[in-house]
Amino acid sequence: MTNSAFEPFVRNAWYVAAWSADLGEDIIARTIMNEDIILFRDGDGKAAALEDRCCHRGAPLSQGRMVDGCVQCGYHGLEFNGAGVCTKVPGQDKVSPNLKVNAYPVVERQHFLWIWMGNPALADEGKLLDYPYFDQTDQWPSKKGYFEIAANYAMMIDNLMDLTHLAFVHEKTIGGDPDTQVNHELIVEKTDKGVKLTRWMENSPPPPTFRKAYNFQGKIDRWGEFKYVPPVSVIQWTGAIDVGNGARQNRDQPGMHFRLFHSATPKTETSFHYFYATANHYRLDEPEATDELFHENHITFLEDKEIMEVQQKRLEADPTRSLEIIKSDEALVQARKALHNMIEEDQALSQSIAAE
Amino acid sequence: MTNSAFEPFVRNAWYVAAWSADLGEDIIARTIMNEDIILFRDGDGKAAALEDRCCHRGAPLSQGRMVDGCVQCGYHGLEFNGAGVCTKVPGQDKVSPNLKVNAYPVVERQHFLWIWMGNPALADEGKLLDYPYFDQTDQWPSKKGYFEIAANYAMMIDNLMDLTHLAFVHEKTIGGDPDTQVNHELIVEKTDKGVKLTRWMENSPPPPTFRKAYNFQGKIDRWGEFKYVPPVSVIQWTGAIDVGNGARQNRDQPGMHFRLFHSATPKTETSFHYFYATANHYRLDEPEATDELFHENHITFLEDKEIMEVQQKRLEADPTRSLEIIKSDEALVQARKALHNMIEEDQALSQSIAAE
Amino acid sequence: MTNSAFEPFVRNAWYVAAWSADLGEDIIARTIMNEDIILFRDGDGKAAALEDRCCHRGAPLSQGRMVDGCVQCGYHGLEFNGAGVCTKVPGQDKVSPNLKVNAYPVVERQHFLWIWMGNPALADEGKLLDYPYFDQTDQWPSKKGYFEIAANYAMMIDNLMDLTHLAFVHEKTIGGDPDTQVNHELIVEKTDKGVKLTRWMENSPPPPTFRKAYNFQGKIDRWGEFKYVPPVSVIQWTGAIDVGNGARQNRDQPGMHFRLFHSATPKTETSFHYFYATANHYRLDEPEATDELFHENHITFLEDKEIMEVQQKRLEADPTRSLEIIKSDEALVQARKALHNMIEEDQALSQSIAAE
Repeated sequence: MTNSAFEPFVRNAWYVAAWSADLGEDIIARTIMNEDIILFRDGDGKAAALEDRCCHRGAPLSQGRMVDGCVQCGYHGLEFNGAGVCTKVPGQDKVSPNLKVNAYPVVERQHFLWIWMGNPALADEGKLLDYPYFDQTDQWPSKKGYFEIAANYAMMIDNLMDLTHLAFVHEKTIGGDPDTQVNHELIVEKTDKGVKLTRWMENSPPPPTFRKAYNFQGKIDRWGEFKYVPPVSVIQWTGAIDVGNGARQNRDQPGMHFRLFHSATPKTETSFHYFYATANHYRLDEPEATDELFHENHITFLEDKEIMEVQQKRLEADPTRSLEIIKSDEALVQARKALHNMIEEDQALSQSIAAE
Repeated sequence: MTNSAFEPFVRNAWYVAAWSADLGEDIIARTIMNEDIILFRDGDGKAAALEDRCCHRGAPLSQGRMVDGCVQCGYHGLEFNGAGVCTKVPGQDKVSPNLKVNAYPVVERQHFLWIWMGNPALADEGKLLDYPYFDQTDQWPSKKGYFEIAANYAMMIDNLMDLTHLAFVHEKTIGGDPDTQVNHELIVEKTDKGVKLTRWMENSPPPPTFRKAYNFQGKIDRWGEFKYVPPVSVIQWTGAIDVGNGARQNRDQPGMHFRLFHSATPKTETSFHYFYATANHYRLDEPEATDELFHENHITFLEDKEIMEVQQKRLEADPTRSLEIIKSDEALVQARKALHNMIEEDQALSQSIAAE
Repeated sequence: MTNSAFEPFVRNAWYVAAWSADLGEDIIARTIMNEDIILFRDGDGKAAALEDRCCHRGAPLSQGRMVDGCVQCGYHGLEFNGAGVCTKVPGQDKVSPNLKVNAYPVVERQHFLWIWMGNPALADEGKLLDYPYFDQTDQWPSKKGYFEIAANYAMMIDNLMDLTHLAFVHEKTIGGDPDTQVNHELIVEKTDKGVKLTRWMENSPPPPTFRKAYNFQGKIDRWGEFKYVPPVSVIQWTGAIDVGNGARQNRDQPGMHFRLFHSATPKTETSFHYFYATANHYRLDEPEATDELFHENHITFLEDKEIMEVQQKRLEADPTRSLEIIKSDEALVQARKALHNMIEEDQALSQSIAAE
């Protein structure tokens, strides 16, 4: 398999720029695909994204401040609205239409703040990932997290579409015995654009954290489902139901259900913004169930960060060297194929636009 | 306007290498235009500048020490005089004339230590900037400062030939209300090689720091004059006189006068040594007036450093992108033209020398 | 003399990878010639060296752990034996022969752990440097040290084959008066592949540290012998015998004898692992004599590290500039010739292998 240290970006796609709730009155500065961007809310509270560079003398707008719903540059006081148009220049009555900065399409929906990093004319809200659980706050109380990881974004897809690593990387958290992790049925299926990996552990004893979180009667039928939605999201559904209730035939019955959302927004070729969220569908009247689930996963994800960052360094050291595949890599290999398809489509699109 | 992140050096010119008083018995190591240099005083107290690299094994001479007016290398003990000639080699009676290091022309004058970074044969003391105020210690008591700024030296010229930024960058120090800063008469004039910017604020109330520093009767006529002397110096004269005394016709009358000297000696393409000095011409019997003026400006210049350094990063990110001009940029635009003229002259000179 | 900031590596040679005693139950990660390597002991206690990169997903094996004498990768649990062969893959009964990582020949001998960095087929134990004193623990009690130096490995050879620097770099430790250091007989001789430098200081007063270490009667005959063994080792024998005992004719008689071993294993072009050891042949029943000798040299070597690192920076700044030779550089010049011969031989060897 080819080395994956520098997987290129898919530009014409929606990416998580921030969690909606994290964008308040202050400007957020964030680099996405090597582009320095500011996120802010205009006078109507509408989210906006502009390049973080004043068109006048190049100062970062993130060093400025909000004035009447516009960003005021901290160097000479030029003001820009959410469309990137300069609305005021100190000492001038008229403002030249040349004074503007690049604006990025953004959509705020289902607790996400999505940004489009490709050609703005192609920004189609119909292509937004649908994640209805965040809106169902009564049925799926959720908690969101964010940190940076110093690795190519594709490392995160590899990591999530692979269950073998749980026994080794997460030995002290969610992992446990290697054989239990490895020797179970894995189902890998193609989806519309991506891949779905499902693992069933039927008639198995609930692991300690499951027993602590939910009142099982005895053994359980347990599954983990991971949907890779290209380019950079993975939607996870983990569930466990008391044995004898036909879980395999019908998963939508009471039990210990939780959903994890993962997305890897590229910062540079060798780093990404990791947005993750947990949502539980049990003990709905106990906020601490939501907190516990988040906390446990947060610790686990920091273990992933650690291994991905050293892996990235090794792959960078010689990007020409290939990698070997093992049996449990099937979903990972399919996911990479799906990603490569999307990269090719995106590059073809960019070329056809350039040719116009 | 073209991006200014990497304005090239003018080599054949005098630059401030240090304040005279800062060069004592110890060697000063300083990088100028990417060249590692040591400054020291020889046995007669005469200032000298040599490359900071022993010709024997390449060790930095700045790691050595002064012995009888020569620099002794800290590795093998070779000694060099102020002309860069090796005068002693341990274990040898004779010293080969090959043993020498590059020396730079230096001139000590008016509290400055000037260095010539171009062809030594062209080092003409007639081209030294004249700043007589430092010698008039009774009439213009002064105080000198120095720090490094991580930006191309031209950012400092931009910054000083522009008054709009005062209201935003120096809002909490000397800035104050944007409209007061912007809506006043600006006069931009060409000088011999450079540009002069004068701003008049007539019949205006003295700002708090002026009132604190000087006993005005009521409103004042106030001016700021900024002379850009290419390649890298700006000479500033700020004054304020009680209204009704004809300040516009005659500025040389009692009032609150002070002069600021600014010079940006390039360290690398993206950093410079900022030499600055304040001199007051009021309350001449009160040394604290001198200290206060210096302190206030020092704080202000650190605000400039902060914005210039983030501006530089943004401009470096894509040096091919141009910048837009606003009305108040006139002096800045003229100053850049003057600088570009000097760069062209210098490059033509270097080519004609190379062709000889 | 040419600049030596980037002397290339001699690949087909044995290098000190570690002191034998430093490799215990834990994996040691060490970069040698830009290659990331792990050192460990297999189930039989036999030392092994593998590349520090799992062939599966590129994770560093040094982040894993020892399991039954094999290294278990910390990401997905693949296990590798001392030959680099994968012996276990979680979730698989059979292991593909493609699953392997590069192994380096290693030999453990005379307290050294040697590694061969060239073609494994050429790894000839007959070419190992012989240093019998480490095995003679009764007669030559020794102590070993290690640190990294940020300079090309050849800087260390220069440093050791030159005695002039003692007076300047080690002024406060073993150096002392420059004239005493310089004005003594130096004998430079070619050896089989290298160079030997001997300095005699006959009928001279013992320096303070010698007097402290040994009970001399009065003046002494003192020598220092430095054998450069290419590519990167220097074997030093320093001794002092009471005057009148014919030291020059017969050095193998009682006195204050000590031996120093120095080796510079390249880490990168601009850094090396410095392995050094001291061994004394006096006050054999006093362990503190061994400790004192080690401590004094350790402090001295840190002074060398300091000067070599700044020297390297200056040489890197412009590798095209040459260096000048002084009289006391004779041994250094001969040593460089010997090194260059070995580099040429090695490169010819590599080319002939590539052509096969």
